[in-house]
Amino acid sequence: MMQGQRRAMEPARLFLGLLCASAALAASSLHQRPPQPESLLEEEEPELGESPSGSLWPLPRSLRILPRQLQLAPARFQLVHGPGSTAGPGCALLQDAFRRYYELIFGYSKWQNRGQRPLPAGTELFQLQVIIGSKDSECDNYPNITSNEAYQLSVTEPVAVLRAEKVWGALRGLETFSQLVYEDDYGSFLINESEITDYPRFAYRGILLDTSRHFLPLKSILTNLDAMAFNKFNVLHWHIVDDHSFPYQSVTFPELSGKGSYSYDHIYTPTDVRLVIDYARLRGIRVIPEFDSPGHTQSWGKGQKDLLTPCFNGEHRSGSYGPVNPILNTTYHFMTDLFKEISGVFPDAYIHLGGDEVDFTCWKSNPDVTEFMKQQGFDIDYAKLESYYIQKILDIVSSVNKGYIVWQEVFDKGVKIKPDTIVEVWIGSLYTKELSRVTGAGFTTILAAPWYLDYISYGQDWKKYYSVEPLNFLGCEKQKKLVIGGEACLWGEFVDATNLTPRLWPRASAVGERLWSSENVTNITDAYNRLVKHRCRMLRRGIAAEPLFVGYCDHEYRGL
Amino acid sequence: MMQGQRRAMEPARLFLGLLCASAALAASSLHQRPPQPESLLEEEEPELGESPSGSLWPLPRSLRILPRQLQLAPARFQLVHGPGSTAGPGCALLQDAFRRYYELIFGYSKWQNRGQRPLPAGTELFQLQVIIGSKDSECDNYPNITSNEAYQLSVTEPVAVLRAEKVWGALRGLETFSQLVYEDDYGSFLINESEITDYPRFAYRGILLDTSRHFLPLKSILTNLDAMAFNKFNVLHWHIVDDHSFPYQSVTFPELSGKGSYSYDHIYTPTDVRLVIDYARLRGIRVIPEFDSPGHTQSWGKGQKDLLTPCFNGEHRSGSYGPVNPILNTTYHFMTDLFKEISGVFPDAYIHLGGDEVDFTCWKSNPDVTEFMKQQGFDIDYAKLESYYIQKILDIVSSVNKGYIVWQEVFDKGVKIKPDTIVEVWIGSLYTKELSRVTGAGFTTILAAPWYLDYISYGQDWKKYYSVEPLNFLGCEKQKKLVIGGEACLWGEFVDATNLTPRLWPRASAVGERLWSSENVTNITDAYNRLVKHRCRMLRRGIAAEPLFVGYCDHEYRGL
Repeated sequence: MMQGQRRAMEPARLFLGLLCASAALAASSLHQRPPQPESLLEEEEPELGESPSGSLWPLPRSLRILPRQLQLAPARFQLVHGPGSTAGPGCALLQDAFRRYYELIFGYSKWQNRGQRPLPAGTELFQLQVIIGSKDSECDNYPNITSNEAYQLSVTEPVAVLRAEKVWGALRGLETFSQLVYEDDYGSFLINESEITDYPRFAYRGILLDTSRHFLPLKSILTNLDAMAFNKFNVLHWHIVDDHSFPYQSVTFPELSGKGSYSYDHIYTPTDVRLVIDYARLRGIRVIPEFDSPGHTQSWGKGQKDLLTPCFNGEHRSGSYGPVNPILNTTYHFMTDLFKEISGVFPDAYIHLGGDEVDFTCWKSNPDVTEFMKQQGFDIDYAKLESYYIQKILDIVSSVNKGYIVWQEVFDKGVKIKPDTIVEVWIGSLYTKELSRVTGAGFTTILAAPWYLDYISYGQDWKKYYSVEPLNFLGCEKQKKLVIGGEACLWGEFVDATNLTPRLWPRASAVGERLWSSENVTNITDAYNRLVKHRCRMLRRGIAAEPLFVGYCDHEYRGL
Repeated sequence: MMQGQRRAMEPARLFLGLLCASAALAASSLHQRPPQPESLLEEEEPELGESPSGSLWPLPRSLRILPRQLQLAPARFQLVHGPGSTAGPGCALLQDAFRRYYELIFGYSKWQNRGQRPLPAGTELFQLQVIIGSKDSECDNYPNITSNEAYQLSVTEPVAVLRAEKVWGALRGLETFSQLVYEDDYGSFLINESEITDYPRFAYRGILLDTSRHFLPLKSILTNLDAMAFNKFNVLHWHIVDDHSFPYQSVTFPELSGKGSYSYDHIYTPTDVRLVIDYARLRGIRVIPEFDSPGHTQSWGKGQKDLLTPCFNGEHRSGSYGPVNPILNTTYHFMTDLFKEISGVFPDAYIHLGGDEVDFTCWKSNPDVTEFMKQQGFDIDYAKLESYYIQKILDIVSSVNKGYIVWQEVFDKGVKIKPDTIVEVWIGSLYTKELSRVTGAGFTTILAAPWYLDYISYGQDWKKYYSVEPLNFLGCEKQKKLVIGGEACLWGEFVDATNLTPRLWPRASAVGERLWSSENVTNITDAYNRLVKHRCRMLRRGIAAEPLFVGYCDHEYRGL
């Protein structure tokens, strides 16, 4: 899904596979016209103030913060498994999370190891007890689209209790707990008594990273996973290969990266990939790899002979290559073996298969393709050839028991896709109409179009991302339910390790709250006041998130 | 010069103080309409190739690279004072530069300390001899507007010779020499025999950093000075204070930063300032501080009672404050003492006095100001009051023997300024007309308007900066000579330590070449090919310069 080409939607068929309730909800077009002027040059200085919700980001679904403050003594405070929890010390995921959040809460303090005076009775919070309620805590699982991320957090003296059915909710609750703790002017750690009930609005909350146009070192990816957890994102959409390079080191086809990567040290070894997946799992984050075809595959061709279509100049080969060659059996043998490997390496139930932006020029130039078209009765309709190819790829991926996500063109062109296919809507113009069409046809969808974060502009563009309402399209309730989430995409044309983090954060945080919090959380001033603090917290935690506007943080970024 | 307000120029008087030759040069408006489309979304992938000038940036004035390659052995190669040089080991500036460039040339190599086999006779470069020709090498001076930065570099077996009149030329030549050295596939260091004669097109080549809207830690400033040297910039325009904060710690008025800085650790102590100035000097870079008044001074008012004008709501004080109060004697006593201190702390012959964007609303509301206006016979012309103030500030600064730079409004409003005042042109629209007017009136000028690098946009906007031709305005030769250079401005509304470096580099490099190289160096493809390599070199040297477009570097940024 290269974002280079925001071409207008072709008028796609609108077949309503869903039986909708009589009155389709009237959709306002608010989110297509962001309330901010395009040019923010004359921007007013915002009033920085206190949000009643402190620095919480994204805002929980239900929140009661009481005036009473409790103090936490770093040397005494503990995160522990609570009574009756089905997860105990054997749950490595939670053990790791406890240590991590202890560090995130207290780690930056210079005073944490000093003995602290006893506090007046009844003013100290001694513990956070984490209680997993479900018989199966899912401690050793990978998160998936149905993972339960709900939690309840009750902060009262002398212990706070975090209840969740599954470890995934516990992870989200730990993040929220850590955000409730603050420092007073004397460096003491305080928390207000609070009651929180929380769960996500959308099940799929993704960040797309592109490691083909520029290679991203492992450390950049891991840092981004940290930031994702701080913002309650739960999917890393890893656009791992594309035209420009093939950094994924395949065991079955080592030549793909051997010849298709930028260089020998611009690859992800199986160990690297494993590390990313494990690091993500411990933070409740799925890793969905994208192996986009038949377009966007120039780099594949370097290490796999005859995979790409040879282009012709008149009667002779031009020396350049087009999309994957759809007319050869060898293509499908190769894809079968490759996706067999991929389905084993990536535990997630879904693979992203791309399918966007297929250029027919080369196919048209190739006489063998022309002959094949005739045989198949495709006439000169190359979309049929594309569909033929994609249908075969979908069958291959189904045969290795994976579900798939595709970019919207696959749907738009009428390729036969399984009912549980997820269609990702990315084309910027008219995306609300596309949402109507895709869900009208009964397909599950993910919205990316308004959140292409690589398109930078001057000023506070986070407000634009924040003001998007994903369900603001024409469609009935059943259709709305098919929108399972959205994704902030940071394509890599102009992004590498030098600028990835400040370009993504806190702009993606705006998307994070939109996808987690209630629909009615739209107050931009309140959001600004919380996000300024949340951004400072990210700095303190080692994420080089860029500033929203003028100002400073008590603990500035130290990673210089 | 806050860039928040690109207001249209008021029709300024055009008094031609210069006697021009008969035919003013016809100016095309090429640089007002950059050759790139505003939207670069459909950008073609550039052809990455080899420039005949390798990776040199900015391009030297005269350059001959011969085919013959010489090898450098890190364990043997030396940078030394050559025979007859007026600078010897007593010249700390050069001693420091020798060690620094040795490190920049070889430092990233893993193999530098291994013993190397002897090379075939006649293929090794053993030394770079640096010969300062002038009786006064200026080794212990600070650079200034007339500093001689010319050099000649001759690379022949067995020794290379770098000749310059002054140390400033030697510093530029060392940078060029370091850029000539490259690694072959076996990790050997090579250089081609070459002859270079080089000198800058413009004497003033600046970068503006803003430490008021966001505080920049010392390390960010020093890293930027390194990058400036790599791009042959020679002025750090330090916009050190403004409305938002006053991080400059004054010895005379400690309360200015005591109350006007963001916090106690968001200040520059006298030691910090000293360090920046020294670090810059060793790289041939001037440090020009800006203390902008009477507007942009909100933070000054926090630590200096009665400095700002109290605003009124009808008959009562509103509680807010406007620009510096121009009607009190105490104001000028304060300014005298402050600029006395500043003129001692900053060795450069110039101070930037700002003078931009003065809002008259508060002055108009204040009855004492109204009364003063009457007394002075200003009627209701508040520009006269502003001129009255600025005239006094200019006199104060003159009395401490400093020259001054002002933003263009001071000229536009007809304030009487000394003939050697430098006027900085910043207003984006119609800047060529302003250049005509300012130089027509006989004033020296610096161009900043087309190089406001804080205005980010999607795509390769460096091409826009590169295509500016500073002398492309209506005016005679004498007028053109009054343009002494230009400046890339990175205002701080949306910039702090998290994103400063990748936002500034390599975009500012485009400005660097425009200001150093010949007017006819305009080939964008050749520039792209060199700049891609130059950017990779910056990464290797620890500067997190962002990518120009898709691709990779052999030595990626390691500062994560």
